[in-house]
Amino acid sequence: MTEKIALTPKTHTTPPAKFSHGVRKGNILQVAGQVGFLPAEEGMPPTPAGPTLREQTLQTLDNVKAILEEGGAGWDDVMMIRVYLTDVDHFAEMNGIYNTYFEEQGLTRPPAARTTVYVGLPAGLLIEIDALAVLG
Amino acid sequence: MTEKIALTPKTHTTPPAKFSHGVRKGNILQVAGQVGFLPAEEGMPPTPAGPTLREQTLQTLDNVKAILEEGGAGWDDVMMIRVYLTDVDHFAEMNGIYNTYFEEQGLTRPPAARTTVYVGLPAGLLIEIDALAVLG
Amino acid sequence: MTEKIALTPKTHTTPPAKFSHGVRKGNILQVAGQVGFLPAEEGMPPTPAGPTLREQTLQTLDNVKAILEEGGAGWDDVMMIRVYLTDVDHFAEMNGIYNTYFEEQGLTRPPAARTTVYVGLPAGLLIEIDALAVLG
Repeated sequence: MTEKIALTPKTHTTPPAKFSHGVRKGNILQVAGQVGFLPAEEGMPPTPAGPTLREQTLQTLDNVKAILEEGGAGWDDVMMIRVYLTDVDHFAEMNGIYNTYFEEQGLTRPPAARTTVYVGLPAGLLIEIDALAVLG
Repeated sequence: MTEKIALTPKTHTTPPAKFSHGVRKGNILQVAGQVGFLPAEEGMPPTPAGPTLREQTLQTLDNVKAILEEGGAGWDDVMMIRVYLTDVDHFAEMNGIYNTYFEEQGLTRPPAARTTVYVGLPAGLLIEIDALAVLG
Repeated sequence: MTEKIALTPKTHTTPPAKFSHGVRKGNILQVAGQVGFLPAEEGMPPTPAGPTLREQTLQTLDNVKAILEEGGAGWDDVMMIRVYLTDVDHFAEMNGIYNTYFEEQGLTRPPAARTTVYVGLPAGLLIEIDALAVLG
Protein backbone atom coordinates (compact mmCIF):
# COMPACT_ATOMS: atom_id res chain seq x y z
CA MET A 1 0.00 0.00 0.00
CA THR A 2 1.30 3.42 -0.94
CA GLU A 3 1.50 5.92 1.90
CA LYS A 4 -0.68 9.03 1.81
CA ILE A 5 1.21 11.93 3.32
CA ALA A 6 -0.16 15.26 4.53
CA LEU A 7 1.93 18.25 3.44
CA THR A 8 1.97 20.96 6.09
CA PRO A 9 4.61 23.65 5.65
CA LYS A 10 5.62 25.46 8.85
CA THR A 11 4.62 28.71 7.20
CA HIS A 12 0.99 27.66 6.97
CA THR A 13 -1.85 28.42 9.33
CA THR A 14 -3.96 25.51 10.54
CA PRO A 15 -6.66 24.72 7.96
CA PRO A 16 -10.07 26.04 9.07
CA ALA A 17 -11.53 22.53 8.67
CA LYS A 18 -10.55 18.87 8.52
CA PHE A 19 -8.54 19.03 5.31
CA SER A 20 -4.86 18.99 4.40
CA HIS A 21 -2.99 21.86 2.74
CA GLY A 22 -1.61 19.23 0.44
CA VAL A 23 -1.41 15.47 0.13
CA ARG A 24 0.94 13.17 -1.73
CA LYS A 25 0.38 9.54 -2.56
CA GLY A 26 2.87 7.82 -4.82
CA ASN A 27 3.65 10.22 -7.64
CA ILE A 28 0.43 12.27 -7.32
CA LEU A 29 0.52 15.50 -5.30
CA GLN A 30 -2.54 17.68 -4.78
CA VAL A 31 -2.31 21.18 -3.34
CA ALA A 32 -5.45 22.53 -1.63
CA GLY A 33 -6.82 25.93 -2.57
CA GLN A 34 -4.36 28.53 -1.33
CA VAL A 35 -5.01 32.20 -0.74
CA GLY A 36 -2.71 35.13 -0.04
CA PHE A 37 -2.23 34.63 3.69
CA LEU A 38 1.14 35.64 5.12
CA PRO A 39 3.22 32.99 6.92
CA ALA A 40 1.42 31.93 10.08
CA GLU A 41 2.28 33.61 13.37
CA GLU A 42 1.50 31.89 16.66
CA GLY A 43 -1.71 33.25 18.14
CA MET A 44 -2.50 35.51 15.19
CA PRO A 45 -5.45 35.00 12.83
CA PRO A 46 -4.66 34.39 9.13
CA THR A 47 -3.76 37.72 7.51
CA PRO A 48 -3.63 38.48 3.77
CA ALA A 49 -0.33 39.78 2.39
CA GLY A 50 -2.11 42.98 1.40
CA PRO A 51 -5.20 44.34 -0.25
CA THR A 52 -3.84 44.36 -3.80
CA LEU A 53 -4.05 41.67 -6.45
CA ARG A 54 -0.27 41.75 -6.85
CA GLU A 55 0.46 41.16 -3.18
CA GLN A 56 -2.12 38.39 -2.91
CA THR A 57 -1.14 36.66 -6.15
CA LEU A 58 2.54 36.49 -5.27
CA GLN A 59 1.83 35.31 -1.72
CA THR A 60 -0.62 32.71 -3.00
CA LEU A 61 1.95 31.37 -5.46
CA ASP A 62 4.51 31.23 -2.64
CA ASN A 63 2.04 29.30 -0.53
CA VAL A 64 1.41 26.77 -3.30
CA LYS A 65 5.16 26.40 -3.84
CA ALA A 66 5.79 25.74 -0.14
CA ILE A 67 3.38 22.80 -0.26
CA LEU A 68 4.91 21.44 -3.45
CA GLU A 69 8.36 21.60 -1.87
CA GLU A 70 7.12 19.97 1.34
CA GLY A 71 6.14 17.05 -0.89
CA GLY A 72 9.45 16.93 -2.73
CA ALA A 73 8.07 18.59 -5.84
CA GLY A 74 8.42 21.93 -7.60
CA TRP A 75 6.67 23.99 -10.25
CA ASP A 76 8.17 21.82 -13.00
CA ASP A 77 6.09 18.89 -11.74
CA VAL A 78 2.80 20.76 -11.85
CA MET A 79 0.29 19.60 -14.47
CA MET A 80 -2.64 21.88 -13.66
CA ILE A 81 -3.10 25.20 -11.94
CA ARG A 82 -6.61 26.42 -11.15
CA VAL A 83 -6.90 30.16 -10.68
CA TYR A 84 -10.02 31.59 -9.06
CA LEU A 85 -10.43 35.34 -9.39
CA THR A 86 -13.29 37.44 -8.11
CA ASP A 87 -13.26 40.00 -10.90
CA VAL A 88 -12.99 39.52 -14.67
CA ASP A 89 -11.22 42.87 -14.85
CA HIS A 90 -8.29 41.35 -12.94
CA PHE A 91 -7.43 38.87 -15.71
CA ALA A 92 -4.83 40.93 -17.57
CA GLU A 93 -3.10 42.12 -14.41
CA MET A 94 -3.01 38.60 -12.95
CA ASN A 95 -1.52 37.27 -16.19
CA GLY A 96 1.23 39.84 -16.06
CA ILE A 97 2.12 38.95 -12.47
CA TYR A 98 1.83 35.23 -13.26
CA ASN A 99 4.12 35.46 -16.28
CA THR A 100 6.81 37.41 -14.49
CA TYR A 101 6.64 35.06 -11.52
CA PHE A 102 7.10 31.96 -13.65
CA GLU A 103 9.85 33.53 -15.75
CA GLU A 104 11.74 34.07 -12.51
CA GLN A 105 11.20 30.47 -11.36
CA GLY A 106 13.51 29.17 -14.09
CA LEU A 107 11.27 26.31 -15.23
CA THR A 108 13.04 23.64 -17.25
CA ARG A 109 9.87 21.92 -18.43
CA PRO A 110 6.70 23.18 -20.15
CA PRO A 111 4.42 25.23 -17.91
CA ALA A 112 1.31 23.65 -16.38
CA ALA A 113 -2.10 23.78 -18.00
CA ARG A 114 -4.41 26.30 -16.37
CA THR A 115 -8.08 27.19 -15.96
CA THR A 116 -9.15 30.62 -14.75
CA VAL A 117 -12.71 31.29 -13.65
CA TYR A 118 -14.42 34.07 -11.71
CA VAL A 119 -16.14 33.12 -8.48
CA GLY A 120 -17.00 34.45 -5.07
CA LEU A 121 -14.36 34.33 -2.33
CA PRO A 122 -14.43 35.37 1.34
CA ALA A 123 -14.31 39.14 1.88
CA GLY A 124 -10.90 40.70 1.26
CA LEU A 125 -9.58 37.81 -0.84
CA LEU A 126 -9.06 38.44 -4.56
CA ILE A 127 -7.45 35.18 -5.67
CA GLU A 128 -7.30 31.49 -4.81
CA ILE A 129 -5.08 28.90 -6.52
CA ASP A 130 -4.80 25.12 -6.32
CA ALA A 131 -2.54 22.72 -8.19
CA LEU A 132 -2.12 19.10 -9.24
CA ALA A 133 1.38 17.71 -9.70
CA VAL A 134 2.74 14.44 -11.02
CA LEU A 135 6.24 13.67 -9.77
CA GLY A 136 9.01 11.57 -11.23
CA MET B 1 -5.05 -1.72 -21.61
CA THR B 2 -6.51 -0.75 -18.25
CA GLU B 3 -10.28 -0.95 -18.03
CA LYS B 4 -12.30 2.22 -17.47
CA ILE B 5 -15.27 1.45 -15.27
CA ALA B 6 -18.40 3.55 -14.72
CA LEU B 7 -19.45 3.75 -11.07
CA THR B 8 -23.22 3.86 -10.72
CA PRO B 9 -24.55 3.22 -7.21
CA LYS B 10 -28.15 1.92 -7.06
CA THR B 11 -29.01 4.90 -4.90
CA HIS B 12 -28.28 7.34 -7.69
CA THR B 13 -30.65 8.90 -10.18
CA THR B 14 -29.75 8.68 -13.85
CA PRO B 15 -27.34 11.52 -14.76
CA PRO B 16 -29.13 14.32 -16.66
CA ALA B 17 -26.60 13.99 -19.48
CA LYS B 18 -24.08 11.61 -21.02
CA PHE B 19 -21.68 11.47 -18.07
CA SER B 20 -20.86 8.96 -15.35
CA HIS B 21 -21.41 9.55 -11.63
CA GLY B 22 -17.90 8.23 -11.21
CA VAL B 23 -15.23 6.47 -13.21
CA ARG B 24 -12.27 4.37 -12.21
CA LYS B 25 -9.28 3.49 -14.37
CA GLY B 26 -6.38 1.72 -12.72
CA ASN B 27 -5.76 3.41 -9.40
CA ILE B 28 -7.42 6.72 -10.33
CA LEU B 29 -11.05 7.29 -9.33
CA GLN B 30 -12.96 10.45 -10.19
CA VAL B 31 -16.31 11.29 -8.62
CA ALA B 32 -18.59 13.63 -10.61
CA GLY B 33 -20.12 16.67 -8.95
CA GLN B 34 -22.69 15.43 -6.45
CA VAL B 35 -25.54 17.39 -4.92
CA GLY B 36 -27.89 16.64 -2.05
CA PHE B 37 -30.40 14.47 -3.89
CA LEU B 38 -32.04 11.69 -1.88
CA PRO B 39 -31.63 8.08 -3.07
CA ALA B 40 -33.41 7.66 -6.41
CA GLU B 41 -36.97 6.36 -6.45
CA GLU B 42 -38.39 4.79 -9.61
CA GLY B 43 -40.47 7.29 -11.53
CA MET B 44 -39.72 10.19 -9.20
CA PRO B 45 -37.67 13.25 -10.19
CA PRO B 46 -34.44 13.94 -8.24
CA THR B 47 -35.34 15.45 -4.86
CA PRO B 48 -33.00 17.30 -2.48
CA ALA B 49 -32.70 15.91 1.06
CA GLY B 50 -34.07 19.19 2.36
CA PRO B 51 -33.78 22.93 2.04
CA THR B 52 -31.05 23.38 4.68
CA LEU B 53 -27.28 23.44 4.20
CA ARG B 54 -26.94 20.70 6.84
CA GLU B 55 -29.32 18.30 5.11
CA GLN B 56 -27.82 18.92 1.69
CA THR B 57 -24.19 18.73 2.84
CA LEU B 58 -24.65 15.40 4.63
CA GLN B 59 -26.61 13.91 1.72
CA THR B 60 -24.01 15.16 -0.77
CA LEU B 61 -21.19 13.57 1.24
CA ASP B 62 -23.17 10.32 1.39
CA ASN B 63 -23.60 10.46 -2.38
CA VAL B 64 -19.86 10.96 -2.94
CA LYS B 65 -19.11 8.10 -0.53
CA ALA B 66 -21.48 5.74 -2.36
CA ILE B 67 -19.56 6.29 -5.58
CA LEU B 68 -16.20 5.84 -3.89
CA GLU B 69 -17.40 2.54 -2.41
CA GLU B 70 -18.82 1.41 -5.75
CA GLY B 71 -15.26 1.74 -7.02
CA GLY B 72 -13.69 -0.10 -4.12
CA ALA B 73 -12.43 3.07 -2.45
CA GLY B 74 -13.26 5.08 0.65
CA TRP B 75 -12.63 8.52 2.10
CA ASP B 76 -9.09 7.51 3.08
CA ASP B 77 -8.21 7.25 -0.61
CA VAL B 78 -9.43 10.73 -1.49
CA MET B 79 -6.76 13.25 -2.47
CA MET B 80 -8.94 16.24 -3.34
CA ILE B 81 -12.42 17.41 -2.45
CA ARG B 82 -13.91 20.37 -4.30
CA VAL B 83 -16.70 22.13 -2.45
CA TYR B 84 -18.95 24.53 -4.34
CA LEU B 85 -21.15 26.72 -2.17
CA THR B 86 -23.57 29.38 -3.33
CA ASP B 87 -23.11 31.73 -0.38
CA VAL B 88 -19.90 32.89 1.35
CA ASP B 89 -21.89 33.13 4.58
CA HIS B 90 -22.28 29.33 4.54
CA PHE B 91 -18.54 28.70 4.94
CA ALA B 92 -18.39 28.41 8.74
CA GLU B 93 -21.51 26.28 8.98
CA MET B 94 -20.35 23.97 6.19
CA ASN B 95 -16.97 23.57 7.91
CA GLY B 96 -18.67 22.56 11.15
CA ILE B 97 -20.79 19.94 9.39
CA TYR B 98 -17.78 18.76 7.35
CA ASN B 99 -15.57 18.38 10.41
CA THR B 100 -18.12 16.42 12.40
CA TYR B 101 -18.86 14.19 9.41
CA PHE B 102 -15.21 13.31 8.87
CA GLU B 103 -14.54 12.79 12.57
CA GLU B 104 -17.31 10.19 12.49
CA GLN B 105 -15.86 8.45 9.42
CA GLY B 106 -12.87 7.22 11.40
CA LEU B 107 -10.23 8.13 8.84
CA THR B 108 -6.91 6.37 9.34
CA ARG B 109 -4.98 8.54 6.87
CA PRO B 110 -4.58 12.32 6.49
CA PRO B 111 -7.69 14.09 5.21
CA ALA B 112 -7.91 15.13 1.55
CA ALA B 113 -6.86 18.55 0.30
CA ARG B 114 -9.80 20.83 -0.43
CA THR B 115 -10.79 23.91 -2.40
CA THR B 116 -13.96 25.82 -1.59
CA VAL B 117 -15.35 28.44 -3.95
CA TYR B 118 -18.67 30.24 -4.30
CA VAL B 119 -20.57 29.76 -7.54
CA GLY B 120 -24.06 29.60 -8.96
CA LEU B 121 -25.97 26.32 -8.73
CA PRO B 122 -29.45 25.29 -9.94
CA ALA B 123 -32.30 26.73 -7.85
CA GLY B 124 -32.72 25.08 -4.46
CA LEU B 125 -29.22 23.57 -4.35
CA LEU B 126 -26.79 25.04 -1.82
CA ILE B 127 -23.78 22.76 -2.24
CA GLU B 128 -22.04 20.56 -4.80
CA ILE B 129 -19.00 18.36 -4.13
CA ASP B 130 -16.68 16.32 -6.34
CA ALA B 131 -13.64 14.24 -5.46
CA LEU B 132 -10.48 12.69 -6.86
CA ALA B 133 -9.12 9.50 -5.28
CA VAL B 134 -5.96 7.49 -5.76
CA LEU B 135 -6.33 3.89 -4.64
CA GLY B 136 -3.77 1.36 -3.44
CA MET C 1 12.35 10.56 -15.19
CA THR C 2 9.13 10.74 -17.17
CA GLU C 3 8.98 13.49 -19.77
CA LYS C 4 6.44 16.29 -19.39
CA ILE C 5 5.18 17.32 -22.81
CA ALA C 6 3.31 20.49 -23.78
CA LEU C 7 0.37 19.85 -26.10
CA THR C 8 -0.08 22.68 -28.58
CA PRO C 9 -2.37 21.94 -31.52
CA LYS C 10 -1.74 24.04 -34.62
CA THR C 11 -5.35 25.19 -34.44
CA HIS C 12 -4.78 26.93 -31.12
CA THR C 13 -3.99 30.55 -30.44
CA THR C 14 -1.03 31.33 -28.20
CA PRO C 15 -2.11 31.15 -24.55
CA PRO C 16 -2.54 34.64 -23.04
CA ALA C 17 -0.10 33.72 -20.25
CA LYS C 18 2.69 31.31 -19.38
CA PHE C 19 0.62 28.13 -19.40
CA SER C 20 0.20 25.17 -21.74
CA HIS C 21 -3.03 24.29 -23.56
CA GLY C 22 -2.38 20.77 -22.36
CA VAL C 23 0.36 18.73 -20.75
CA ARG C 24 1.05 15.03 -20.65
CA LYS C 25 3.33 13.21 -18.27
CA GLY C 26 3.34 9.43 -18.32
CA ASN C 27 -0.28 8.33 -18.54
CA ILE C 28 -1.77 11.55 -17.14
CA LEU C 29 -3.01 14.21 -19.56
CA GLN C 30 -4.47 17.52 -18.42
CA VAL C 31 -6.29 19.86 -20.78
CA ALA C 32 -6.36 23.55 -19.81
CA GLY C 33 -9.64 25.44 -19.75
CA GLN C 34 -10.82 25.80 -23.34
CA VAL C 35 -13.32 28.28 -24.70
CA GLY C 36 -15.10 28.57 -28.04
CA PHE C 37 -12.36 30.29 -30.03
CA LEU C 38 -12.13 29.42 -33.71
CA PRO C 39 -8.89 27.92 -35.05
CA ALA C 40 -6.14 30.51 -34.79
CA GLU C 41 -5.36 32.72 -37.78
CA GLU C 42 -1.98 34.44 -38.09
CA GLY C 43 -2.22 38.04 -36.92
CA MET C 44 -5.86 37.81 -35.84
CA PRO C 45 -7.01 38.06 -32.24
CA PRO C 46 -8.84 35.03 -30.75
CA THR C 47 -12.41 35.00 -32.06
CA PRO C 48 -15.34 33.02 -30.64
CA ALA C 49 -17.13 30.65 -33.03
CA GLY C 50 -20.28 32.67 -32.53
CA PRO C 51 -22.46 34.32 -29.95
CA THR C 52 -24.67 31.28 -29.24
CA LEU C 53 -24.24 28.58 -26.62
CA ARG C 54 -24.45 25.92 -29.35
CA GLU C 55 -21.66 27.40 -31.45
CA GLN C 56 -19.41 27.96 -28.46
CA THR C 57 -20.06 24.56 -26.87
CA LEU C 58 -19.27 22.63 -30.04
CA GLN C 59 -16.16 24.69 -30.74
CA THR C 60 -14.99 24.30 -27.13
CA LEU C 61 -15.42 20.51 -27.31
CA ASP C 62 -13.47 20.49 -30.59
CA ASN C 63 -10.72 22.48 -28.93
CA VAL C 64 -10.51 20.05 -26.01
CA LYS C 65 -10.44 17.12 -28.44
CA ALA C 66 -7.60 18.64 -30.46
CA ILE C 67 -5.46 18.77 -27.33
CA LEU C 68 -6.34 15.22 -26.34
CA GLU C 69 -5.37 14.01 -29.81
CA GLU C 70 -2.13 16.01 -29.74
CA GLY C 71 -1.28 13.94 -26.67
CA GLY C 72 -2.25 10.62 -28.23
CA ALA C 73 -5.54 10.40 -26.35
CA GLY C 74 -9.23 10.67 -27.17
CA TRP C 75 -12.55 11.16 -25.41
CA ASP C 76 -12.54 7.52 -24.29
CA ASP C 77 -9.53 8.29 -22.08
CA VAL C 78 -11.14 11.22 -20.31
CA MET C 79 -11.95 10.73 -16.63
CA MET C 80 -13.31 14.16 -15.77
CA ILE C 81 -14.84 17.04 -17.67
CA ARG C 82 -15.40 20.36 -15.91
CA VAL C 83 -18.03 22.56 -17.51
CA TYR C 84 -18.21 26.22 -16.54
CA LEU C 85 -21.34 28.02 -17.66
CA THR C 86 -22.26 31.63 -17.01
CA ASP C 87 -26.02 31.10 -16.74
CA VAL C 88 -27.99 28.42 -14.88
CA ASP C 89 -30.66 28.71 -17.57
CA HIS C 90 -28.18 27.27 -20.10
CA PHE C 91 -27.96 23.89 -18.32
CA ALA C 92 -30.65 22.03 -20.26
CA GLU C 93 -29.55 23.36 -23.64
CA MET C 94 -25.89 22.57 -22.93
CA ASN C 95 -26.84 19.02 -21.90
CA GLY C 96 -28.69 18.51 -25.16
CA ILE C 97 -25.72 19.70 -27.21
CA TYR C 98 -23.32 17.67 -25.03
CA ASN C 99 -25.33 14.46 -25.38
CA THR C 100 -25.65 14.71 -29.14
CA TYR C 101 -21.96 15.53 -29.48
CA PHE C 102 -20.87 12.50 -27.45
CA GLU C 103 -23.33 10.17 -29.19
CA GLU C 104 -21.66 11.16 -32.46
CA GLN C 105 -18.16 10.53 -31.08
CA GLY C 106 -18.78 6.79 -30.92
CA LEU C 107 -17.34 6.25 -27.45
CA THR C 108 -16.48 2.64 -26.68
CA ARG C 109 -15.97 3.18 -22.95
CA PRO C 110 -18.12 4.79 -20.23
CA PRO C 111 -18.37 8.58 -20.48
CA ALA C 112 -16.28 10.78 -18.18
CA ALA C 113 -17.50 12.07 -14.85
CA ARG C 114 -18.52 15.73 -14.96
CA THR C 115 -19.04 18.77 -12.75
CA THR C 116 -20.99 21.78 -13.98
CA VAL C 117 -20.96 25.06 -12.11
CA TYR C 118 -21.94 28.62 -12.94
CA VAL C 119 -19.23 31.25 -12.81
CA GLY C 120 -18.14 34.48 -14.40
CA LEU C 121 -16.24 34.38 -17.70
CA PRO C 122 -14.76 37.12 -19.91
CA ALA C 123 -17.35 39.12 -21.85
CA GLY C 124 -18.86 37.23 -24.79
CA LEU C 125 -17.88 33.78 -23.57
CA LEU C 126 -20.69 31.48 -22.39
CA ILE C 127 -18.80 28.27 -21.67
CA GLU C 128 -15.39 26.98 -20.64
CA ILE C 129 -14.38 23.30 -20.40
CA ASP C 130 -11.30 21.50 -19.10
CA ALA C 131 -10.54 17.80 -18.88
CA LEU C 132 -8.37 15.22 -17.14
CA ALA C 133 -7.47 12.02 -19.00
CA VAL C 134 -5.71 8.83 -18.00
CA LEU C 135 -4.22 6.97 -20.96
CA GLY C 136 -3.43 3.32 -21.48
